[in-house]
Amino acid sequence: MNHETIELYADRSDVTLTSYVLDDSPEILDGRRRGAVLVCPGGGYLGCSDREAEPVALRFAAMGYHAFVLRYSTYYGTFKGGFQAGEMSGKKETMHPAPVRDIARAFLTIGEHAEEWLVDMDKITICGFSAGAHNCAMYSVYWDTPLITDFFGKGEEHFRPAAAILAYGISDYRLLYSSHPDRFVRELRTASAMALLGTAEPGDELLDEVSPVLRVSDSTPPTFIWATSEDRLVPAENSISMAAALARAGVPYEMHLFESGMHGLSLADRSTGGNMMMIDSDAAQWIGLAERWLEKRMACALPSTPAWMEEMQQ
Amino acid sequence: MNHETIELYADRSDVTLTSYVLDDSPEILDGRRRGAVLVCPGGGYLGCSDREAEPVALRFAAMGYHAFVLRYSTYYGTFKGGFQAGEMSGKKETMHPAPVRDIARAFLTIGEHAEEWLVDMDKITICGFSAGAHNCAMYSVYWDTPLITDFFGKGEEHFRPAAAILAYGISDYRLLYSSHPDRFVRELRTASAMALLGTAEPGDELLDEVSPVLRVSDSTPPTFIWATSEDRLVPAENSISMAAALARAGVPYEMHLFESGMHGLSLADRSTGGNMMMIDSDAAQWIGLAERWLEKRMACALPSTPAWMEEMQQ
Repeated sequence: MNHETIELYADRSDVTLTSYVLDDSPEILDGRRRGAVLVCPGGGYLGCSDREAEPVALRFAAMGYHAFVLRYSTYYGTFKGGFQAGEMSGKKETMHPAPVRDIARAFLTIGEHAEEWLVDMDKITICGFSAGAHNCAMYSVYWDTPLITDFFGKGEEHFRPAAAILAYGISDYRLLYSSHPDRFVRELRTASAMALLGTAEPGDELLDEVSPVLRVSDSTPPTFIWATSEDRLVPAENSISMAAALARAGVPYEMHLFESGMHGLSLADRSTGGNMMMIDSDAAQWIGLAERWLEKRMACALPSTPAWMEEMQQ
Repeated sequence: MNHETIELYADRSDVTLTSYVLDDSPEILDGRRRGAVLVCPGGGYLGCSDREAEPVALRFAAMGYHAFVLRYSTYYGTFKGGFQAGEMSGKKETMHPAPVRDIARAFLTIGEHAEEWLVDMDKITICGFSAGAHNCAMYSVYWDTPLITDFFGKGEEHFRPAAAILAYGISDYRLLYSSHPDRFVRELRTASAMALLGTAEPGDELLDEVSPVLRVSDSTPPTFIWATSEDRLVPAENSISMAAALARAGVPYEMHLFESGMHGLSLADRSTGGNMMMIDSDAAQWIGLAERWLEKRMACALPSTPAWMEEMQQ
C-alpha cells in the first residue's frame, strides 16, 4: 500500500489528500489499473470528521479499489466538535467555491500519479457524508462548468466523476432554512452557513447556487444515496429531492432510506462508532448495498482463468 | 494509519511484519486500545502469496482492528508460483521450527510497539491460509511450550493468541502423504515437505510433530475454521479433524465447510481474485461469519452514548 498525505496547496496545510493505494501484484491485477473512491468526510464545513475518513477509505480499499480521503477547505481546518456561531466571520479562503474546487484539485493530483499508482481515471467515484456529501453533490453538478474548468484552465476530461455516493447529505440548502425547534440544530446550521457561505443570512441567489438539486443534468454521474428518515439534523427530504432530480434528468440512481438511525452514522459499525448509539445493524447495510452498486460500474475486467492455467493449456 | 514493514531478523530480509495500524481519534476510541489480527498468507512454505496478504489485512482493518501481515520463513522467500521439487535441498534457516517461531517473533515485535500503536495484547487473533493456516495451527498448539518460550527466554504471557482463524489449512500432515492421482498435486506436496521438513520422506515422528491436530489442548485458543469440501489440494478432512480435536479438548470453535470452490480462494471476491475462477459468492461469506465470530472476543467495550452527550447531561 502506498499511504501518504499530500498537501493540495503550496501555502496551506489544511487541505490534504491521503492515499490508500493498493499494492499491485502479479497474482492479482498484474499491472491492470483499478478504480478509486475519493472520500469526503462531513463536519458541517467546520472541519472534517475522522469517523468519516480513514475507516471508510479502508472499507473501499478492502473491496479492491484504491481509496483516498480528501480533507477539503473548512472553517476551522480541524474537527474539534465545538463552534461559536456568534464569533464567526466570513473566511474567503475556505468558503464556497473553495471546497468543491478542492475535489477538482484532488482529481488533478490523482491524475498526476495515475500511472505510478495504477489508477483508472475513468473509474473515480466520489463518496461524501453530510456536508461532505453536499460537497460531492456540488461537484457532481459543477465538474464540467467554468467554475471548475476555467478556474484550473483544463478541459472537463480531467474532472469527470464515474459515480457519486451521498450519505445523509444536504442537496437543497433552502430546506435548511426552515425553522427548527432545537436550538443546537439552529446554531449548527448558522455556523455551517457562516463557514460555507460567509453569511448567516444568505439570499435566494446564493442558496440556489449551492443547492445541487437545482442543477442536476445529464452530465451528473450515476448516484447512490442513503439516509435515515429519522435524521433530525439533515432531513431525509434532501435525499428524496436529489433522487427526484436525478429521475427527472434520466440519471441512474439508487436510494436507501432506513427507517431509524441518527445523523452521522458513517459505517454504523464498530469501525466508526465510538459509542453504542452510533452502531446500527440496519443502517450498516448501506455499505454492502453500495458495494454491489459500485461493482456494476467500477469492477475491473478479469480473465476467466488464472494465467498459469492458460499457459498449461497452450 | 501507521503502515510500515519491519524486518524481524537483523541479518535476513525475507521475514517481515507489515503494519496496518489504525489512526486513533478522539471521535472514535479516544486512546482506548484495539485488538489486532495477524495474517499469515499461504504458499506451501515455498513463499507467501500476495493474495492472502494485504487485501486480507485491509478487510480486518476495515472491521476496526489493527492488522498485520507476517511474511514468515519460506523456502524461496518470495512467491513466484513455480518450483522444482527435484532440485530442492533442506534449508535449516527456513524449515520447521522457524516459521512457527516467526509468529512468536511477530508477537514480541507488536508487544514492543503496543503502547505507541494502542494494541490490546490480550486480543491478538492469528489468521492463516493454507500453509499459513498450518503455521497458525502450529502456533496455537506450541505458543506456550519450550519450543517458543525457552527459545526466546520469555514467559508464555508474551505469546498468548486470543483466537485463531484457519482457512483451508493443513492440520494433519499424515493426510497429505496418502497417494494422489494428480502429478501436480504430488509434486507440490513434495516441494512443500522439502521446504518445511527438509526431506521428501519425513518419518512418523516428524509428521506427528508438525500435525497440530495431535497436540490440541485446553491452551489452544478458540478457533474459526473454514474450507471447501471440493478442495483437491488440501482435503477438507484436515479441517474436520481439527474441529474434532478442538471438540475433544473443549475448546470453543466454529467451522464452515462450503460445498464448492477450489483451493486458495482467499476472500473469494474481487479484492483477491485476479480471475473469475477465484471469485465465489458462496465461499466469500466466510469473512462475514468470521467478523461476527471475532466480535464476540475482540470487540472493544464502548460507552453507551457520545462523550458530548454525557457532558451536556452533567
